[in-house]
Amino acid sequence: MRLRHKPFANDKLLEYKEFVVEKPEEFKGKWQERFEKEQPLHIEIGCGKGRFIIEMAKRFPEVNFVGIELQTSVIVSALEKQIEEQLPNLQLLQVNAKDLMDYFDDGEVDRIYLTFSDPWPKNRHEKRRLTYDSFLTVYKAILNNKGELHFKTDNQILFEYSLTSFSKFHAVLEEVYLDLHNSEIEDNIMTEYEEKFSKKGNRIYKSVITF
Amino acid sequence: MRLRHKPFANDKLLEYKEFVVEKPEEFKGKWQERFEKEQPLHIEIGCGKGRFIIEMAKRFPEVNFVGIELQTSVIVSALEKQIEEQLPNLQLLQVNAKDLMDYFDDGEVDRIYLTFSDPWPKNRHEKRRLTYDSFLTVYKAILNNKGELHFKTDNQILFEYSLTSFSKFHAVLEEVYLDLHNSEIEDNIMTEYEEKFSKKGNRIYKSVITF
Ligand SMILES: C[S@@+](CC[C@H](N)C(=O)[O-])C[C@H]1O[C@@H](n2cnc3c(N)ncnc32)[C@H](O)[C@@H]1O
Ligand SMILES: C[S@@+](CC[C@H](N)C(=O)[O-])C[C@H]1O[C@@H](n2cnc3c(N)ncnc32)[C@H](O)[C@@H]1O
Repeated sequence: MRLRHKPFANDKLLEYKEFVVEKPEEFKGKWQERFEKEQPLHIEIGCGKGRFIIEMAKRFPEVNFVGIELQTSVIVSALEKQIEEQLPNLQLLQVNAKDLMDYFDDGEVDRIYLTFSDPWPKNRHEKRRLTYDSFLTVYKAILNNKGELHFKTDNQILFEYSLTSFSKFHAVLEEVYLDLHNSEIEDNIMTEYEEKFSKKGNRIYKSVITF
Repeated sequence: MRLRHKPFANDKLLEYKEFVVEKPEEFKGKWQERFEKEQPLHIEIGCGKGRFIIEMAKRFPEVNFVGIELQTSVIVSALEKQIEEQLPNLQLLQVNAKDLMDYFDDGEVDRIYLTFSDPWPKNRHEKRRLTYDSFLTVYKAILNNKGELHFKTDNQILFEYSLTSFSKFHAVLEEVYLDLHNSEIEDNIMTEYEEKFSKKGNRIYKSVITF
């Protein structure tokens, strides 16, 4: 865990072990044990300050959620929301998405939300994009056969890149929205970035992918 | 051939047999015989009044082109341009795209351009869209292994639909442009519809697909 910038953040994560999984490798294949009820498992990768995952967990009590975020200093804001909400179907996990096969068993996850990932626009940073081939290998492994990846972004170049990356990986684009907020989709829950960038007038892109 | 609306159009097509193939089934597997030089074969489906295919044939003399259009009354405008230009690497063909396997051998075509196809927005008309599954079967058959489909449209809903249709067909999206005229692509040649709709402010979408 990273202690830079917000040294107190790490202490806070350790303090709320009921919400923030301390040794996630111990729950590989056993995530259902972390929740009150055994029900479908949806994870968000790069959940940031947690607005989306908190709203989702409230709206869908029949689903278990795990919010995953690399940065201690950011996930602590999600934790603060969860301390208020005390949602029984929400867990938080401060790890790097590239390592998710260490923490989730093959097919253990029913859905992945990938929301407003960092675009890494330079070609030489392609491998860092969360829709790069090596990440797709991880998503495919941990998702069950009918599992879906729900990807949203306002970044046109990342979206263009990602559609080709999914396709070259032989994943299937089940749904594509080139202007989500002006589509017939009504039950969209916004992330922090989504609200900010759609207010600026950016289009929001979405795709649903199966592997 | 259809004689409605422009009865003279059909006569005109018959008059210029050197440019408009009369019995295309006789050239199945032998399209190179229609041209001066044996060189890659690119076809445009729904070439309309021919602006794009005429410009392409001028710009790329090292490629043989066939402009395909269903409507006699429309393709006759492409013929009029070709009568002026006398391009040795351009042929015209008035047939329905659904029948292309009757006129082209397996793998005979190197590239297909599909430009501003009719959107058929109603769900019950899905089968009429030129990116519907049954058309993709035809394109895959007549394209050679490295062959590409280049698809352009300004219609957002048709583009969304088509990306999922290609993907469900297990074709590969090699390239995706969500705003072609503001992309780094510089050598784009516009069709009639492209000029008209981009002037209205519509974004132009493009994808390059392999099968
Ligand atoms: C641009 S922010 C978006 C946050 C939130 N999803 C939203 O839409 O408001 C991207 C987040 O992804 C996190 N992130 C980037 N790479 C990651 C990785 N490899 N594993 C987990 N999180 C990552 C970043 O720390 C950052 O908080
Ligand atoms: C919207 S227009 C676009 C014309 C031209 N490509 C452009 O971009 O300006 C679509 C054209 O496709 C033709 N078309 C539609 N269905 C077709 C089919 N099944 N086979 C051949 N042409 C077809 C129509 O007759 C029409 O001329």
